[in-house]
Amino acid sequence: MSSIWGNSLKISVFGESHGELVGVTIDGLPCGITLDTDYIENFMARRRPGQNEYSTARNESDKPTLVCGILDGVTTGAPLTAVIYNSDKKSGDYADVKRLARPSHADYAAHIKYLGNNDIRGGGHFSGRLTASIVFAGAVAAQLLKQRGITVGAHIKSVANISDDGFSADIEAQLAKLAQKPFAVINDESAIGMQAAILSAKQQLDSVGGVVECAITGLPAGVGSPMFGGVESRIASIVFGIPAVKGIEFGAGFDITKMTGSQANDEIYAEGGKVKCHSNNNGGITGGITNGMPVIFRVAIKPTPSIARPQRTIDLKTLENGVIEIKGRHDPCIVQRAVPVVEAVAAIAVLDMLLGE
Amino acid sequence: MSSIWGNSLKISVFGESHGELVGVTIDGLPCGITLDTDYIENFMARRRPGQNEYSTARNESDKPTLVCGILDGVTTGAPLTAVIYNSDKKSGDYADVKRLARPSHADYAAHIKYLGNNDIRGGGHFSGRLTASIVFAGAVAAQLLKQRGITVGAHIKSVANISDDGFSADIEAQLAKLAQKPFAVINDESAIGMQAAILSAKQQLDSVGGVVECAITGLPAGVGSPMFGGVESRIASIVFGIPAVKGIEFGAGFDITKMTGSQANDEIYAEGGKVKCHSNNNGGITGGITNGMPVIFRVAIKPTPSIARPQRTIDLKTLENGVIEIKGRHDPCIVQRAVPVVEAVAAIAVLDMLLGE
Amino acid sequence: MSSIWGNSLKISVFGESHGELVGVTIDGLPCGITLDTDYIENFMARRRPGQNEYSTARNESDKPTLVCGILDGVTTGAPLTAVIYNSDKKSGDYADVKRLARPSHADYAAHIKYLGNNDIRGGGHFSGRLTASIVFAGAVAAQLLKQRGITVGAHIKSVANISDDGFSADIEAQLAKLAQKPFAVINDESAIGMQAAILSAKQQLDSVGGVVECAITGLPAGVGSPMFGGVESRIASIVFGIPAVKGIEFGAGFDITKMTGSQANDEIYAEGGKVKCHSNNNGGITGGITNGMPVIFRVAIKPTPSIARPQRTIDLKTLENGVIEIKGRHDPCIVQRAVPVVEAVAAIAVLDMLLGE
Amino acid sequence: MSSIWGNSLKISVFGESHGELVGVTIDGLPCGITLDTDYIENFMARRRPGQNEYSTARNESDKPTLVCGILDGVTTGAPLTAVIYNSDKKSGDYADVKRLARPSHADYAAHIKYLGNNDIRGGGHFSGRLTASIVFAGAVAAQLLKQRGITVGAHIKSVANISDDGFSADIEAQLAKLAQKPFAVINDESAIGMQAAILSAKQQLDSVGGVVECAITGLPAGVGSPMFGGVESRIASIVFGIPAVKGIEFGAGFDITKMTGSQANDEIYAEGGKVKCHSNNNGGITGGITNGMPVIFRVAIKPTPSIARPQRTIDLKTLENGVIEIKGRHDPCIVQRAVPVVEAVAAIAVLDMLLGE
Repeated sequence: MSSIWGNSLKISVFGESHGELVGVTIDGLPCGITLDTDYIENFMARRRPGQNEYSTARNESDKPTLVCGILDGVTTGAPLTAVIYNSDKKSGDYADVKRLARPSHADYAAHIKYLGNNDIRGGGHFSGRLTASIVFAGAVAAQLLKQRGITVGAHIKSVANISDDGFSADIEAQLAKLAQKPFAVINDESAIGMQAAILSAKQQLDSVGGVVECAITGLPAGVGSPMFGGVESRIASIVFGIPAVKGIEFGAGFDITKMTGSQANDEIYAEGGKVKCHSNNNGGITGGITNGMPVIFRVAIKPTPSIARPQRTIDLKTLENGVIEIKGRHDPCIVQRAVPVVEAVAAIAVLDMLLGE
Repeated sequence: MSSIWGNSLKISVFGESHGELVGVTIDGLPCGITLDTDYIENFMARRRPGQNEYSTARNESDKPTLVCGILDGVTTGAPLTAVIYNSDKKSGDYADVKRLARPSHADYAAHIKYLGNNDIRGGGHFSGRLTASIVFAGAVAAQLLKQRGITVGAHIKSVANISDDGFSADIEAQLAKLAQKPFAVINDESAIGMQAAILSAKQQLDSVGGVVECAITGLPAGVGSPMFGGVESRIASIVFGIPAVKGIEFGAGFDITKMTGSQANDEIYAEGGKVKCHSNNNGGITGGITNGMPVIFRVAIKPTPSIARPQRTIDLKTLENGVIEIKGRHDPCIVQRAVPVVEAVAAIAVLDMLLGE
Repeated sequence: MSSIWGNSLKISVFGESHGELVGVTIDGLPCGITLDTDYIENFMARRRPGQNEYSTARNESDKPTLVCGILDGVTTGAPLTAVIYNSDKKSGDYADVKRLARPSHADYAAHIKYLGNNDIRGGGHFSGRLTASIVFAGAVAAQLLKQRGITVGAHIKSVANISDDGFSADIEAQLAKLAQKPFAVINDESAIGMQAAILSAKQQLDSVGGVVECAITGLPAGVGSPMFGGVESRIASIVFGIPAVKGIEFGAGFDITKMTGSQANDEIYAEGGKVKCHSNNNGGITGGITNGMPVIFRVAIKPTPSIARPQRTIDLKTLENGVIEIKGRHDPCIVQRAVPVVEAVAAIAVLDMLLGE
Repeated sequence: MSSIWGNSLKISVFGESHGELVGVTIDGLPCGITLDTDYIENFMARRRPGQNEYSTARNESDKPTLVCGILDGVTTGAPLTAVIYNSDKKSGDYADVKRLARPSHADYAAHIKYLGNNDIRGGGHFSGRLTASIVFAGAVAAQLLKQRGITVGAHIKSVANISDDGFSADIEAQLAKLAQKPFAVINDESAIGMQAAILSAKQQLDSVGGVVECAITGLPAGVGSPMFGGVESRIASIVFGIPAVKGIEFGAGFDITKMTGSQANDEIYAEGGKVKCHSNNNGGITGGITNGMPVIFRVAIKPTPSIARPQRTIDLKTLENGVIEIKGRHDPCIVQRAVPVVEAVAAIAVLDMLLGE
């Protein structure tokens, strides 16, 4: 029940942070698709660790190995499995914390659920490392969406209390630019403050969080379902599969609660046979179904819980109170690396819905 | 795919706002439960329309009729179906808007998806009226949870820009009080401002939205799963099945993105053999699994889209631009009525997870 | 988990034999279909009890009441729910057997599972009466398939040891004739022996079983999936939802195990651009996927377990050994009434697969 | 939809016959289980090819490599993935048949479904080779069932027209002996005839089929559900995922259709507080729920479709009629190798149901 998601397109995620590999099986992928290796590897490279001072020093090439479901570079229609080997793991770093639960990590909750049998090295199956396989699956999905004229793109909406600009009317151009940027902000000025905030947190043995904003353009009106099969339900259910996510909002989101109906309502007009809205406070979705406006949502990412400062916690075996000092290599901020992960799950969710229509 | 939700406990919702009835089938309900009719009817009464000047004048008794799955008041283990008849429908109110899409309603999106075949009277299957059946199912689930020592309770966290207090350390006492209040706020002072805001919007032929905050107490640590079977994923996927919801956040939610790790992390301690946290910024869930702290989440409810003011829109058949003036009886605010609906879906989600463990 | 079936088209069955009603919700039904009431009622009439001396004297009109999902006779795309009221129930008949488990019925197994809370009157939710709602859903599905050129039809292949002819090359004509017959045999001669066997069993306070053979024609090649999503898997999983079914076989079925490969293999040829096989021992399915030949399968139906003869059994409460004499009105044979039920589930399974392709 | 099965315990199967590997991910496996490597490898060895003259000469060691979900030999609760490398593949054998559809294989059906993109080498994902991964998952499931006192065991009930004895009252002893036999028959005499039939077919460039009979003992009464969640539905849906299966029957199966109710009914008695039946024509299942008697079912396996004799078929690209002579190494009979595969899927189905209760 835990690590499989989807109806028409199913992904099954497996592996651990400090095991041999992480991987994913994609079941229900259309046949006859020539996978665009460059596109997929570029997509994955945006999540890859070890690239700069804003993320962990763990260095992984993150090259996916396709072990089945493909013949001469073309999908066969059979399940496609990709594995990504873990090459730079240092499990020794975790030896001394094996019995001390790291605050705000899954350690204690997982210890209770799995009776102490879970792999605690690097967080095991709970690790953000698992998102490498999700991003592979998402890159494949995004390639298929691109062929249907649908673009999925995200940016760092905020880090700590520094905000980026939002999406404008010319969203397609914004998305095209964002896809090229190593630090995905719309307004490059905002990157300066964000990066300073990350380095400052790093220096203080602390961490920061932020918000990722994602847009899906080109999606026709009429996709989704009322109630539990709605676009918001489907996207939210997979977005919360990303570690560290604590919230999601669509369109104006929580801000819409402070508007009046006359301010919030997206008035409708037709122009040249196309139906549009004067605003997009509903984020492209009404009644669970797309209305032809861009789908917009934001995801709250908490500050990396792994910090080197001493923290109060308990010994999992004795329940004695103690203090933990987490060693190892950690991201002072994962928001920038979460950008392609959010895009990936959005692409998987949208493709799953389209294949099921 | 649309109106069925759940794994071990499945609910199947059916009906339309201005049809004969709405209803729900609960599949997988444990046998041998003596349904507490008073509890269920009180639960449903909190959602019922026509009770005061803050909600629609539509007057429905909302008495559920149990048509199967029960014998001498006790659940048999077979699917339990309840129907709620629509007694006070005035479909004439919709006759003249049948071709004009109501802004921020599902009308246009549904028209495209269902090629004009959807029942537009009162929103049909998209109507908030459907939540009557969800609340029935949720009340049944909540009764079962109560027997396991688990309480689900919610309050109006805000209406427009007026906020209620939040949950305190004495959350159990707060929930007990809230369950008795017709207008569910923790601090009765805040009700005054909220009600004034609702009446003011009503007078201006407008509407307001707000936030519902929900708590689940008594849930043991270890419930849930990593990744897509996490508690947040499951709750979010059903919460977005409620019409008008535009966001959900757990624990500190979007605010956690502005904290540092050292501020956000919930340090752990043991006391008398019990494991607790010094704070609850994760809202009782880490790695998708409960950690024994109360599960806390907030839901953003948009202002009722049905407002009487003239709004720009299109004719669904001709695509001509026009102006709509929505008649009929509408809620100037649905936040107060959404409180039991949020509780209901939370109870369903939690019971589904517990039955599947 | 129990009474809901399907992926793209989901049916949720509810009700009890001696409760107020039985019913079904169809979720995922395409919109814009004008339901053919005559077609559906004729389909259901073939299953209806009380029509002749070969089936139970219980007399039910079996008129479905459509309570939602339809507007002016046309499907809206919202869940379609139909209920069928139980008008001729005589629960008194069951009063004295409430504690004695009827052999080969679900009584004992259900008593253990539901701890004695299950509705034992007429078998409750386990009753063949529930197939009335399945047949409604199947008739709707069959109507949609007909519009796509796909025909589902079945006949009584055998009753006791009397066999009907099998399907011939002119299967379409056979199916057309069968749909008109109250006692669905291909060769009318065989009906004489079958009916005699039924009446003889009835006279001896006994019952007989038989085999229903079903064909699906017009299905294009390429429908289905390898492994667990195969046509055989999907049809089998829903067929065993019919009470009294103890076996299913496709094509030559169990007889294929006595052939050699050279006898069993369906050699292939093309004629006028159409691909066919010289034989159809695989029943139109290879590797889980249709090959364009008619899909053929047979279903084993056990003799009605309700017989009036004294039978050894136990008292469910005391576990004392005893003897039961079942009273009430029972079918001496349900094979003839199972014909439209088998067609119904086949139609549901095929439509579900087609909608998901 | 195709290669994933299960509710509480999910298996996701991947790989191709002549690709690098086949594998399986088991999601939902309980934690804390020390995998019994010997037990699993013995289980898998019974399916392994290349062991004697009755099966294909393809020689595979079939050693599973566990890549995640396990730590120090103990299951962690995270998805467990095992891969089995294909070491003795000779794809050259298939080069000349790439365009000619092999009769009774999936070639033509798959060609239509996958538009020619499917991997045809050795049948690709449709190959019986995939059952190696299913058997791994089944062996793990069977180990867990053993710890709960549940035994799953099968034998060759027939090959061509030679039959083995059936299960007797002392079924536990029979199963214990069968697990040790390389050629799994109850009555060793029957093996002589079966093996002669296989070798005779082999000599004639032909093949034979047969029936596998499976028993599940130790399962308590009360497992399963009415309707679509019944034990028969669940087992049938996974059994038809095994290539070459054309039928399944429970208890007396198709033979029950020739009995009267008084012959077929399993009369009930209690003895020393235990409830049993005087016969087991229902195969341990009534109303979809176990009744405490052994679950018994039989599976029809068709003769291996790959035979060396010339067969009429078509060219997949040109649709021209032609003749195929299949080369390569093939099993003259797969029934004996199907025995552990049937056990495997039965174990998976039962464990899935037990974990969901």
